[in-house]
Amino acid sequence: MTFTASPQSLHFEAPLPLQSGASIRGYDLSYETYGQLNAERSNAVLICHALNASHHVAGVYPGQERSEGWWDNMVGPGKPVDTNRFFVIGVNNLGSCFGSTGPMHVNPGTGQVYGAEFPVVTVEDWVNAQARLLDALGIGQLAAVMGGSLGGMQALSWTLQYPERVRHAVVVASAPNLTAENIAFNEVARRAIVTDPDFHGGHFYRHGVVPARGLRIARMIGHITYLSDDVMNEKFGRELRAAVVGNGSGYRFSTQDVEFQIESYLRYQGDKFSEYFDANTYLLITRALDYFDPARAFGGDLTQALARTQAKFLLVSFTTDWRFAPARSREIVKALLENRREVSYAEIDAPHGHDAFLLDDGRYMGVVRSYFERIAQVQA
Amino acid sequence: MTFTASPQSLHFEAPLPLQSGASIRGYDLSYETYGQLNAERSNAVLICHALNASHHVAGVYPGQERSEGWWDNMVGPGKPVDTNRFFVIGVNNLGSCFGSTGPMHVNPGTGQVYGAEFPVVTVEDWVNAQARLLDALGIGQLAAVMGGSLGGMQALSWTLQYPERVRHAVVVASAPNLTAENIAFNEVARRAIVTDPDFHGGHFYRHGVVPARGLRIARMIGHITYLSDDVMNEKFGRELRAAVVGNGSGYRFSTQDVEFQIESYLRYQGDKFSEYFDANTYLLITRALDYFDPARAFGGDLTQALARTQAKFLLVSFTTDWRFAPARSREIVKALLENRREVSYAEIDAPHGHDAFLLDDGRYMGVVRSYFERIAQVQA
Repeated sequence: MTFTASPQSLHFEAPLPLQSGASIRGYDLSYETYGQLNAERSNAVLICHALNASHHVAGVYPGQERSEGWWDNMVGPGKPVDTNRFFVIGVNNLGSCFGSTGPMHVNPGTGQVYGAEFPVVTVEDWVNAQARLLDALGIGQLAAVMGGSLGGMQALSWTLQYPERVRHAVVVASAPNLTAENIAFNEVARRAIVTDPDFHGGHFYRHGVVPARGLRIARMIGHITYLSDDVMNEKFGRELRAAVVGNGSGYRFSTQDVEFQIESYLRYQGDKFSEYFDANTYLLITRALDYFDPARAFGGDLTQALARTQAKFLLVSFTTDWRFAPARSREIVKALLENRREVSYAEIDAPHGHDAFLLDDGRYMGVVRSYFERIAQVQA
Repeated sequence: MTFTASPQSLHFEAPLPLQSGASIRGYDLSYETYGQLNAERSNAVLICHALNASHHVAGVYPGQERSEGWWDNMVGPGKPVDTNRFFVIGVNNLGSCFGSTGPMHVNPGTGQVYGAEFPVVTVEDWVNAQARLLDALGIGQLAAVMGGSLGGMQALSWTLQYPERVRHAVVVASAPNLTAENIAFNEVARRAIVTDPDFHGGHFYRHGVVPARGLRIARMIGHITYLSDDVMNEKFGRELRAAVVGNGSGYRFSTQDVEFQIESYLRYQGDKFSEYFDANTYLLITRALDYFDPARAFGGDLTQALARTQAKFLLVSFTTDWRFAPARSREIVKALLENRREVSYAEIDAPHGHDAFLLDDGRYMGVVRSYFERIAQVQA
């Protein structure tokens, strides 16, 4: 069932103008492709990633255990996004720490590692960079662009920035912008990183250290918001990691030791994350989330903002997702319908919170499968 | 309308046995009283405080601006808990940093500042200490014990530890225990404090520093969970602190500067808190929250746990409180009803999240006022 993935890379010398007014030149984009581009070049599907993912969407790397792509349950031969029919492209975004040019790479303008000087990149900038990659691959129009969470924002932005280049957009567990609460959680995570003495203003590479304390806190906060209260209670509840025998409560009565299983889980997730994720990337990606707001230029009117779209849409949300709640997806659905766009919307009753978009759920997978089957039939 | 409050203190030489098996001796409890104890000593009301509060429940300190007690809208002459009728006692809990013996005080056993050696205290321990204070004040039975959030846990615990000493318990915005998500947020806050290099294993006093970075993060997390998503959107939304003129978005495009108003608000709250709150106290109080779980000794059966109660109850919850959601209060109501206790329950439709228990809301204040009027009439 598994297949082999081969990461590739393309170098772009020409400067890419960024939304901030800055630009970036001499950058690389890492990507992977699965399946075959048809003769008409009409079966390409672009998959956009969220915070902690990459161009490695599906398949495995030979000889590497547990190297499945992050959406391997969704993309592959016979999977909902069927690589026997579609030519699927995964691309790592600029500023990431998984292959494409990011803060840990050398700025060709200065010969120094970017660090905190890496330019602020937005969802719109990523989409522009992805469009250049498609140009280089000879793909004019996408059969579909698809993403979850921050990836869903990119999919939505594609339909606004390149309306004629997208036939379908699949936007999962996403939102037309972040709420104040979303921004607040991002800000706490950023403060934890930036105020870690090992951050050194973003130039920690020079000091041979990593702001691991801050990254751990950031990841712990993230994890809480990815899960639902219900699934946390079911998975961990108030279970103790190692109950003390012969004392009535089982508590160790400590303020610093791990007492509850949920604490152990969060510490583990935080530790693991701090070993591989780049702190500057964390700042950049959370800011891209904060900044995304296509309605902003239209005085907050999302219907007006989405008038430019030409694509057909599938939106999916999950009932227990409190980070990107169903109501946020419904805002997009409503604005698209007001523009008389063709929209399918599925609200999946899943217990797993925001994380649900990465997990197997029969109804969720079924909806995506049917939608892509329809795309395949139309173009066949 | 305001009246003057006078903090008092009592010294307790005899060791207080703690739930952990440790004990504490030679400690002080700070408290305030408002109103007059009647001849029958039957009109005493004990107010229990939550994380960031103290014995200073109501009134002002002469010459100090904005020194109103933390529940001054609730307690005072003519207020819902009317000090013309009731003798109200506020007490600062052991381990706090507002007057009663805490981690920054000297351990009489060692002659050293307690710091991280301050014993772990639980809700039950606090109630035992409060009971000793009442003994010293000559109060056998309380007309009522009242508290919100962690204070509500103390009120509930009073009815279990000293059933015959409590006629009424008023439990506001509380829960029979913390959920995994609640514990998770507490744990992230604790990790932020403990991993701050200025924490020095809890002995930062000796080093002349304070783990301000950790305290700021802890407070920011706390603040997000006290507010509802709705009220955050209403108060802050996606408003920028200082929009850049002449650029389409208004964004400054920075990962570290304040961009949104919500960020500015959270940073300010974090900074303020870190200047006065003790880090060891933060660990102790959040652990007391984690540990409270009266049903634990009964295999999780809250109905069995509450069989000991003799008091009458008023429970209040707030619809948008996701930290201590109405469903958690209803669990208590249900368990009390199954024990055929007399219970009043009000679920207040308020937009302010957990913070609502400290704010003015006509219906909330009205419910508490009516309940205390009934108590006053019965004893008159």
